[in-house]
Amino acid sequence: LDYQHVQVPFEITLWIMLASLAKIGFHLYNKLPSVVPESCLLIFVGLIMGGIIYGLNDRSPPVMDSDIFFLYLLPPIVLDAGYFMPSRPFFENIGTILLYAVVGTIWNVFGIGFSLYGICQVKAFRLQDVSLLHNLLFSSLIAAVDPVAVLAVFEEIHVNEKLHILVFGESLLNDAVTVVLYKLFRSFCEMPTIKSMDIFAGIGKFFVVGLGGILVGLTFGMTAAFTTRFTKDIRVIEPLFVFLYSYLSYLTAEMFHLSGIVAIIACAMGMKRYVEANISLKSHTTVKYFMKMWSSVSDTLIFIFLGVSTIGENHEWNWPYICFTVIFCLVWRALGVLVLTFFVNRFHVNTITGKDQFIIAYGGLRGAICFSLVFLLPDFHRKKLFIAATTVVILFTVFIQGMTIRPLVDLLAVKRKRESAPTVGEQIHIRFLDHLLAGIEDISGHWGQYYWKDKLEYFNSKYLQKILLREYDQPKSSIVLLYEKLERKHAIELAEAGQLGHPPSHPSLLCSDFLCSSNNRTVVMDKKLEDTLNPNVLENIQEILARNLYRIRRTGPAYNRHTLPKDTEPTEHAKEILMLRHRSL
Amino acid sequence: LDYQHVQVPFEITLWIMLASLAKIGFHLYNKLPSVVPESCLLIFVGLIMGGIIYGLNDRSPPVMDSDIFFLYLLPPIVLDAGYFMPSRPFFENIGTILLYAVVGTIWNVFGIGFSLYGICQVKAFRLQDVSLLHNLLFSSLIAAVDPVAVLAVFEEIHVNEKLHILVFGESLLNDAVTVVLYKLFRSFCEMPTIKSMDIFAGIGKFFVVGLGGILVGLTFGMTAAFTTRFTKDIRVIEPLFVFLYSYLSYLTAEMFHLSGIVAIIACAMGMKRYVEANISLKSHTTVKYFMKMWSSVSDTLIFIFLGVSTIGENHEWNWPYICFTVIFCLVWRALGVLVLTFFVNRFHVNTITGKDQFIIAYGGLRGAICFSLVFLLPDFHRKKLFIAATTVVILFTVFIQGMTIRPLVDLLAVKRKRESAPTVGEQIHIRFLDHLLAGIEDISGHWGQYYWKDKLEYFNSKYLQKILLREYDQPKSSIVLLYEKLERKHAIELAEAGQLGHPPSHPSLLCSDFLCSSNNRTVVMDKKLEDTLNPNVLENIQEILARNLYRIRRTGPAYNRHTLPKDTEPTEHAKEILMLRHRSL
Repeated sequence: LDYQHVQVPFEITLWIMLASLAKIGFHLYNKLPSVVPESCLLIFVGLIMGGIIYGLNDRSPPVMDSDIFFLYLLPPIVLDAGYFMPSRPFFENIGTILLYAVVGTIWNVFGIGFSLYGICQVKAFRLQDVSLLHNLLFSSLIAAVDPVAVLAVFEEIHVNEKLHILVFGESLLNDAVTVVLYKLFRSFCEMPTIKSMDIFAGIGKFFVVGLGGILVGLTFGMTAAFTTRFTKDIRVIEPLFVFLYSYLSYLTAEMFHLSGIVAIIACAMGMKRYVEANISLKSHTTVKYFMKMWSSVSDTLIFIFLGVSTIGENHEWNWPYICFTVIFCLVWRALGVLVLTFFVNRFHVNTITGKDQFIIAYGGLRGAICFSLVFLLPDFHRKKLFIAATTVVILFTVFIQGMTIRPLVDLLAVKRKRESAPTVGEQIHIRFLDHLLAGIEDISGHWGQYYWKDKLEYFNSKYLQKILLREYDQPKSSIVLLYEKLERKHAIELAEAGQLGHPPSHPSLLCSDFLCSSNNRTVVMDKKLEDTLNPNVLENIQEILARNLYRIRRTGPAYNRHTLPKDTEPTEHAKEILMLRHRSL
Repeated sequence: LDYQHVQVPFEITLWIMLASLAKIGFHLYNKLPSVVPESCLLIFVGLIMGGIIYGLNDRSPPVMDSDIFFLYLLPPIVLDAGYFMPSRPFFENIGTILLYAVVGTIWNVFGIGFSLYGICQVKAFRLQDVSLLHNLLFSSLIAAVDPVAVLAVFEEIHVNEKLHILVFGESLLNDAVTVVLYKLFRSFCEMPTIKSMDIFAGIGKFFVVGLGGILVGLTFGMTAAFTTRFTKDIRVIEPLFVFLYSYLSYLTAEMFHLSGIVAIIACAMGMKRYVEANISLKSHTTVKYFMKMWSSVSDTLIFIFLGVSTIGENHEWNWPYICFTVIFCLVWRALGVLVLTFFVNRFHVNTITGKDQFIIAYGGLRGAICFSLVFLLPDFHRKKLFIAATTVVILFTVFIQGMTIRPLVDLLAVKRKRESAPTVGEQIHIRFLDHLLAGIEDISGHWGQYYWKDKLEYFNSKYLQKILLREYDQPKSSIVLLYEKLERKHAIELAEAGQLGHPPSHPSLLCSDFLCSSNNRTVVMDKKLEDTLNPNVLENIQEILARNLYRIRRTGPAYNRHTLPKDTEPTEHAKEILMLRHRSL
């Protein structure tokens, strides 16, 4: 037995296997996932596993490595979120999202930080050795809403699209703020004195980190789109580029201390439309499928690890500090949402209702990002207290808030997501209205979102598409593309229901005879057909049958290692059909 | 700048990116890949890169790590080979393949080993310090044909299926023999004295390593099939299980010193038919696509690394030893193939022709497996000579033989692979003949391959399918499945050519009008239709249009993170179509 040799890949594979099997287990009983969010169940599995490891080894189970989390587990989830981000609601609400993400997070950080410092001044709590800076450092990591936790819970409760994108967008974009504040306070902790210059430099860093992330992401996204122009001859590696470039954008951003999350989202949203136009349909299915698969496994692993890491002796318990942390997290978030929404509603026609505000405040879940950041803290004597407080906040938000948010949404009758996607007709009208509004904005001199969208669209079709798309000579409207997609889906459904072409009814059977033996055509026609069909229709049916018969005779090309079976040339088919027709006439 | 932090994933991503871009580069110019095999070009790229690294750093570039090769690069390639292995020709020729793989490899090992020992006895060559055991150890790693190199070259020359499977099957299955002999001689090298017991134990190990590998592989394969029974509710992680279980089978086999290659092939071949029946069509596309993608990237990386590792100061040059190694590799393989084929041909009706024998002997390419094994040798003073000899043999076989084999196949007019796959009619006839031959063998009491195949098929349908398949109540014949697959493919082609349903001809346009406004149905009918269509046909067309119109109105369901859009229920559609019909009648 040589376990040492295969240990690393073997254990990684086993962890992934455990995560996948846990997922299957939950879905075997349909009732379980509808009551308890999957994330809670997974943390629970993690807690049990951690308990077993702790019981067997008599020492703390290994905590989730922050490097593994930030380098390998987080990127797939964020990539999936960015790639499948519904771009229209996102850009429509970008102002509100940014307000929540930037101003809201800063509000929370300073609110929680100063309040906790106040608590530390109470002598009875014995916390006087925790300085203001340490409190602010702690609040900078505990204040940010976690995208992984938010996704896991909000995907299951199906609130309306605007509400969803507000909470989810905030949780993604606040990464830039969290990164800056966390690193700022950490370096302040290590500095002997803090000058006012340093504070201004910190404010400047916000823009560098956020905009730098967007720039890095867009650069890699455009490169990815450009690369897929040249993959026509080797379709097999097309999906790889989507993953490679977005991962590179994340790593590059992290390398320059920019926001990796913002970079990967910008990369995914930037490349999506060009890549989709360039790669083949099967490559696209693979990209989508693999992204979902990967993010879903990462997500499962994160929650299991979160449970495992909770068990152990890393905690220092202090009732007042921990309780007040939970309370302040709730209170300051609620206040922040109320105040910010008041300003947002003054400038918008579609206001955010009171119910929506409540759900936004209540949906501020914390998760694995806080957890990883708290372990990355520099060693100091109260680190274990911070770890304990973070663990409690995460478990409180995921378990208590995560499990009660669905009944609350039902109780408050929050507007739900519409069940079906907009129809083609609706989409045409939406587009028409967009053009109209862009025109109105242009005439009235008001440079609003429609104006900029129109300008961007113009720039896109004038320059970007020409560089990034392979077959630019035929720019298809998205309505036509949608129609084609539907046709394809429809065709597959028809084929699976066995209804393609015609049902094997009376006339079609005759026609197939008639094609095979063209010499006794007139006999058959005279005898049986003329009473039911006239020649016009007959020709139609004959054509369809000829096509069908032609295809059935052909099967896919033989085994080949480097390529998947290619789509056969339609012209070649058309030729043979013509020949068949000629013979029969 | 914090490069240290992201170094590992960043460099891995960059290497994969280089490999993918190199692949795109070659395929941009269509003429290049048709003259030179891709593997040669990739080694060439590697040599250049190695030269650059050597020139810049002034020290040897890092050699390919044997652990990385065996644990991460080799499994995807073997998995792909096993999963897409054409099982019929493989099992039809299993006897011949095993003879080449086991007896042929042993023949080569001892032939090359003893001849090289003879060369070492010549005083002028100054090789008298290389013992017989070291020569045998070296010959055990240099004798085995490499599956990666064989695949890379044979995929491009399209010889007939039997010839392909003979060379390729041998290269896969000789792994068991190589593992045993290599480890045997290595432990003999370290032992003070060798007893005859040890030799017998070595012979017994053959069977343990080979059969153990098959057992491990089949166990994991069946578990994988069984697991996919329960994935109906979470289609997204289905593809994962195929990869996880086959990788686990490889690692487990390696852990117990069994043949990992044999295990992963048994796993892939065993699970394939059950997994394909259980998972969804899109999951299957993802599995296929990802396997091809992964193996193709691994393959590219291996050849590039091979080139990089060649450059440097690892080599000790000795003209006679290196030249005689190349010559003996060629001669003993040619002799082995001649002798073994003589026996094979005596027991078969379809004999292996002289031309085929030449290609089998000439196609014995060596590759990265030898290269990794030679670096794994225990340190002794002539290791660098062995590394040099191995490098030369690999470069000789890949460059000289790999580049000349295609012209030789053309020159000798070796029977090529048939261009198209067998038609449905042919497949029905083949199956019919199989049953007939199984019956004849049963009556005549000759337990040949058809008899065993029939028994296995019976066992499969009686027990295995019931345990491993989700929906066993409807066992579909493979002919029906093939038909369905063709129908689906055909449907997509039709939809893409815009020919689904009817071309927008005169009658169909009218009918769509007629469905939308059912109240003036009779008017329209009376005016325009009755002269060209009779009611029977009209109804047919109407039905098709109703279905089309219905589908077009619907678009895919809205964004969801954990699942991909589901296929809508056909019954629901049928209901609405009925309602439409009723309204219009």
